[in-house]
Amino acid sequence: MTSTSPEPAAGPAEADGAVLIRRLEIADRERGFLPLLAQLSSCPDLTASEFAACFADLAALGDDHVILVAEDPAAAPERRILSTGCLFVERKFLRGGGKVGHVEDVVVDAAARGRGLGLRVVRRLVEIAKEAGCYKVILDCTPDLRAYYAKCGFVEKGVQMAVYF
Amino acid sequence: MTSTSPEPAAGPAEADGAVLIRRLEIADRERGFLPLLAQLSSCPDLTASEFAACFADLAALGDDHVILVAEDPAAAPERRILSTGCLFVERKFLRGGGKVGHVEDVVVDAAARGRGLGLRVVRRLVEIAKEAGCYKVILDCTPDLRAYYAKCGFVEKGVQMAVYF
Repeated sequence: MTSTSPEPAAGPAEADGAVLIRRLEIADRERGFLPLLAQLSSCPDLTASEFAACFADLAALGDDHVILVAEDPAAAPERRILSTGCLFVERKFLRGGGKVGHVEDVVVDAAARGRGLGLRVVRRLVEIAKEAGCYKVILDCTPDLRAYYAKCGFVEKGVQMAVYF
Repeated sequence: MTSTSPEPAAGPAEADGAVLIRRLEIADRERGFLPLLAQLSSCPDLTASEFAACFADLAALGDDHVILVAEDPAAAPERRILSTGCLFVERKFLRGGGKVGHVEDVVVDAAARGRGLGLRVVRRLVEIAKEAGCYKVILDCTPDLRAYYAKCGFVEKGVQMAVYF
C-alpha cells in the first residue's frame, strides 16, 4: 500500500477514481479512522495501545475479517480516510458448511458524500466475500438506505431486530 | 451434559421444563441436528468427518461462537435435538472496541413448535451475549416473526438486505 495513486488526479471524477481502496492499517488511527466511525455511531477515542490491541484481535481472524478504507491521495501527507466498511465471514453448518459474509460499519465522511466512495467500498467487500466462497452477503440498514444498497446488488430480505443492554 | 434432566417429567409443561438446553456436541450429528437445520434452509448431510471438521472450525472460535441445542430427555436413547440457535460475537472498533452478538439459525422442530423451546434457546443466547459484554444483540428474520422475537425483548431496528451468489 502506498499513499500515491497510480492514476493522475485531474477533475473531481478522476480524483475520485484515484482514491485508494485498501485494507485498514494500524497507522490509520492517525488518519481519522475513529472520528470517521464516530459519524456512524458512538466511537470513543482509543489510545494507540488500545487501538493496536483491537487491531490485533481483528487481524487474528485473518481473511474472515476485512476492514477496507478509502484513502484520499489528494490529502497527503495526512492521507485522510474518507470511507470505511467491514466484512466478516460467518461459518455455518447450513449449506454444507457454508459461509455468509456480513457487511458492517459502512460510513462515508460527511464532506465526501455523493462521490460513490461508499459504494466502491461495499462493492469490493462483496467481491471479497464471493472470492472467499460465501453463498450470500447480508447487511442491516435503515429503510432510507434500501436504494443505496440496491446499487450494489442488494435486495431486501427481512427485518432486523435488536436488544440493547 | 447428560441425557437425563434433573426435573421430573409430568404434564407437557413440566416435560418441556425438563428439556435440556446445552451447547452443541459433536455427537449431535447422530441426534438429528442437520435434519433440524434443514427445516430452516438448505442443509445437505455432512459425513462424520465433514461434520467434525466444521465443528472444529467453529469450536476454535471459543466463546465467540456458541451453538445451543434443546435436547428432549423423553426421546432417550435417541436424545433427539428439538431446537437450535447460534450466537456469534463480532468485535468492533465502535463503542470503544465493543462487541455485538449476532443470533443466527434459530429453528424448532415442526413437531415441537408451540412449546416455547425456541424462545428458551434465544433467551439463553441473549444472556450469553450479555455475559460476554456485548452492548447489543441483533438478528434478522421475516416480518411475521417480529412478535415472536419481541417476546425475547427484541425490537425492530431496520431492514435486512442481501446479495446471493
